[in-house]
Amino acid sequence: MNENYLYRKKHEQDKTIIKIKNNKICQGNFTFIAGPCSVESYEQFFTTASDLKKTGVNIIRGGVFKPRTSPYSFQGLREEGIKILSSVKKELDIAVVTEITSITQINLFDDVDIIQIGARNMQNFEFLKEIAKLKKPVILKKGFSNTIDEFLLSAEYLLINGCSDIILCERGIRTFEYKTRNTLDISAISIIKELTHLPIIIDPSHSGGIDKLVYPLSLSSIYAGSDGIIVEVHNDPKNALSDGEQSITPKDFERLYTNANKIFNYKVENNI
Amino acid sequence: MNENYLYRKKHEQDKTIIKIKNNKICQGNFTFIAGPCSVESYEQFFTTASDLKKTGVNIIRGGVFKPRTSPYSFQGLREEGIKILSSVKKELDIAVVTEITSITQINLFDDVDIIQIGARNMQNFEFLKEIAKLKKPVILKKGFSNTIDEFLLSAEYLLINGCSDIILCERGIRTFEYKTRNTLDISAISIIKELTHLPIIIDPSHSGGIDKLVYPLSLSSIYAGSDGIIVEVHNDPKNALSDGEQSITPKDFERLYTNANKIFNYKVENNI
Amino acid sequence: MNENYLYRKKHEQDKTIIKIKNNKICQGNFTFIAGPCSVESYEQFFTTASDLKKTGVNIIRGGVFKPRTSPYSFQGLREEGIKILSSVKKELDIAVVTEITSITQINLFDDVDIIQIGARNMQNFEFLKEIAKLKKPVILKKGFSNTIDEFLLSAEYLLINGCSDIILCERGIRTFEYKTRNTLDISAISIIKELTHLPIIIDPSHSGGIDKLVYPLSLSSIYAGSDGIIVEVHNDPKNALSDGEQSITPKDFERLYTNANKIFNYKVENNI
Amino acid sequence: MNENYLYRKKHEQDKTIIKIKNNKICQGNFTFIAGPCSVESYEQFFTTASDLKKTGVNIIRGGVFKPRTSPYSFQGLREEGIKILSSVKKELDIAVVTEITSITQINLFDDVDIIQIGARNMQNFEFLKEIAKLKKPVILKKGFSNTIDEFLLSAEYLLINGCSDIILCERGIRTFEYKTRNTLDISAISIIKELTHLPIIIDPSHSGGIDKLVYPLSLSSIYAGSDGIIVEVHNDPKNALSDGEQSITPKDFERLYTNANKIFNYKVENNI
Repeated sequence: MNENYLYRKKHEQDKTIIKIKNNKICQGNFTFIAGPCSVESYEQFFTTASDLKKTGVNIIRGGVFKPRTSPYSFQGLREEGIKILSSVKKELDIAVVTEITSITQINLFDDVDIIQIGARNMQNFEFLKEIAKLKKPVILKKGFSNTIDEFLLSAEYLLINGCSDIILCERGIRTFEYKTRNTLDISAISIIKELTHLPIIIDPSHSGGIDKLVYPLSLSSIYAGSDGIIVEVHNDPKNALSDGEQSITPKDFERLYTNANKIFNYKVENNI
Repeated sequence: MNENYLYRKKHEQDKTIIKIKNNKICQGNFTFIAGPCSVESYEQFFTTASDLKKTGVNIIRGGVFKPRTSPYSFQGLREEGIKILSSVKKELDIAVVTEITSITQINLFDDVDIIQIGARNMQNFEFLKEIAKLKKPVILKKGFSNTIDEFLLSAEYLLINGCSDIILCERGIRTFEYKTRNTLDISAISIIKELTHLPIIIDPSHSGGIDKLVYPLSLSSIYAGSDGIIVEVHNDPKNALSDGEQSITPKDFERLYTNANKIFNYKVENNI
Repeated sequence: MNENYLYRKKHEQDKTIIKIKNNKICQGNFTFIAGPCSVESYEQFFTTASDLKKTGVNIIRGGVFKPRTSPYSFQGLREEGIKILSSVKKELDIAVVTEITSITQINLFDDVDIIQIGARNMQNFEFLKEIAKLKKPVILKKGFSNTIDEFLLSAEYLLINGCSDIILCERGIRTFEYKTRNTLDISAISIIKELTHLPIIIDPSHSGGIDKLVYPLSLSSIYAGSDGIIVEVHNDPKNALSDGEQSITPKDFERLYTNANKIFNYKVENNI
Repeated sequence: MNENYLYRKKHEQDKTIIKIKNNKICQGNFTFIAGPCSVESYEQFFTTASDLKKTGVNIIRGGVFKPRTSPYSFQGLREEGIKILSSVKKELDIAVVTEITSITQINLFDDVDIIQIGARNMQNFEFLKEIAKLKKPVILKKGFSNTIDEFLLSAEYLLINGCSDIILCERGIRTFEYKTRNTLDISAISIIKELTHLPIIIDPSHSGGIDKLVYPLSLSSIYAGSDGIIVEVHNDPKNALSDGEQSITPKDFERLYTNANKIFNYKVENNI
């Protein structure tokens, strides 16, 4: 059984298509996932999610278990946050994405449509095996210092343990450049597309770490072959409990959404 | 005199416009520079340059003094190469770009329209001062491990020593990822645009180091704000004396040229 | 409660002393931990552990839950390996160190004297919180792309959740240099000593990834202030199931042990 | 002629020995080179050099052509500095080391005993060729983002162009860690020793960028096989015109000198 299920050429497999609400997340489509870094309150999440839904997005992200570098930083609303996700999900008829940070949280994830595995857990192999068993769609983020080979082998851990609906996500790598939080590895998108049948999206928020970079990085990624973006949107970035400096407003997101769609359609229609 | 001439905000300077043939190289335009990594012979350079001119490019690159990691690698045709550049320049009525690697070569550069300062010389400060005195247009490549701040300070060395026509060029940074030769820092383009009045282009050939990446990286860069590309084109990449694996053919370039223009125009027309 | 327990200056705390068998692991002592990368069989582990004990080491490492980049690589003997550790521990009267890779393994760790948290789990914060509750001595390895600040904040996660016996371990960082598996950050040892009251050791095996580097890196670390080493020793490196190329033989280890002790004593006696 | 003169195994060459005053700089010896980052005045250089000579050092460094990131930083005393070097050299009967940053300076280097080629010029290949022709002893610093292979190939450029007295110098590499200016790659010393017959020293001042790190890094390097150190010493670091934060005082240097000699002798006598 020593073979890679991931690699397009080995298996000549059709591309993986992940259906969430009316979205088909797959190579060749462009999917938007947006929402606040952290769920901070019912009102905050409901408001942002409503705004995003009006814009046209129905897969909403919101962190409740937050992996934070310092134990003294806000750690997320946790169980309370999951309840908020569930309520707003029903009320607005949306799909929700949130990060899992421990297998002890698994039983709380019934209502979660897409489970996010964060960059710091990309090589937490036992964790990957356990999450895979849930057979739910997963966003697997590339570790900030992991190679493409390591990334695909981590996806392989998921794949051979039962998880077939994997969305790969490039979210920036750690380099010497200090003007950005991380460095978006835009080449990685093209290379990964060559190698695998899975969709690959980018996270322009963590890549740059700056609100103004979200727009150009998102649009740029389209011509590298990105199949979507997961972006942090907050209705009041200045007062966000986490990642405010890299969050954009629903209004800014609307412009991004409109133009990304235009560009993507232009690309497809003109066979560029 | 301790101030930065480079920074847009400090000087509220109009953007720098560099006129070469019918091109205006500046922020807001998109310029193509193309040609072989090395000038290998009159025939090779003439053929490639002719093909590129037919496509629509009249600024042709071709290396004659080659900075090579190993002293045993092909070091370029040198003086002989300069003569070829001059001949083909006249014959085809094109502008030529080539790299200078020592101030002892200066007297050979009369016919050269744009002098390239390579990544390895970006912090060769005395060299920058000497080149600046020529008052010729310069392409300054970002060192593969230099920060944006260091890059702009090197441009400042040129600027305060008499060179005002500077084209900045991002050509990839050195990271741990080994599937690409370097990692194109696409965020750097947006950030540099914010800070300076100079045009910033990318080198998709050295960034990725792979022929197949030239197309997606070039197109991607447009939405990050790139003002052009400098790309390695060879009429027989497999037999190139240097960098064959990252060179594209004139035919592939033609497709790139057409689509990059389409995308750039679409961006401008739609105010994206 | 927003304060760092880790920082020497804030708390003016006496240094942390961790007593294992007759060892005092702390700043100012030099402790040896050695053993095979993986426990492969009773015989293999018993033989290597016996050899090491004869040399003078009674804290023996041996991996049973192995974090491997590829799911197709040997994943460790797991529960079976824990039984081997327990048997040999009793038989030879040694302390054992092994890595935990999931909280589902916790109930198997009763006999384990020091729990290792691997580099890839350094920022697996929920995991740190759970391990801390066991109140057992822990080796916390520095992630291969984590800063010193991040490392100390991860130790802080352990500290404020109940684990006071923490051994910090520098095991090399990921850089562009490909001649070594990682780059030992020797400066980090000195800096960490300034900042904290915890012992800091190095892993010369993973740092270099080459058997011949184990000796010089180990000895070098003494004058940077290292409080010990954790080193991979295998009685038949060429046939090791994992990390054979960076494992040394018990005989090579003996020379390292003798000379490291000599150097350390010379340093202390001469107040260097 | 396509072969590497540098590689020990290919040529089975005896080690290179560079004789300067009563020093033999070579593998197996330990040489001290010390002095201020910049020559700032006759008094400053004379005082520091005198102090160092009393301690036992007779190879004194002092920068006069300074490669500075910003054009607005102090660029060195230049020709004036060379005169100071020459005077103090005669007066104190010492050898002097200083960096050359342009071939236009060559005629000023008659009195200079060892020419330093800085990290930023390591891959300035035409420059290497010109310097090699002088046939003077050279310190070649490793670029902060260059691999060991690239470093040795740059030494090869010197070697095949006439310079046989090359002192290799590791001075730290650029990584993501921001608590140090660079990261000393201590493994590189051992690896380079295996590959070449040239002496390899370290620069503990630029590696760490912090005065307190000079001592531990210097001592550590001895057991990695370093053949010496080049260290920044200033009689008044707080008021230094450059690199004050990483300079140590002559008094601190004295302690370093004494202990480094002790350790080196202990290593040799005990065959460690």
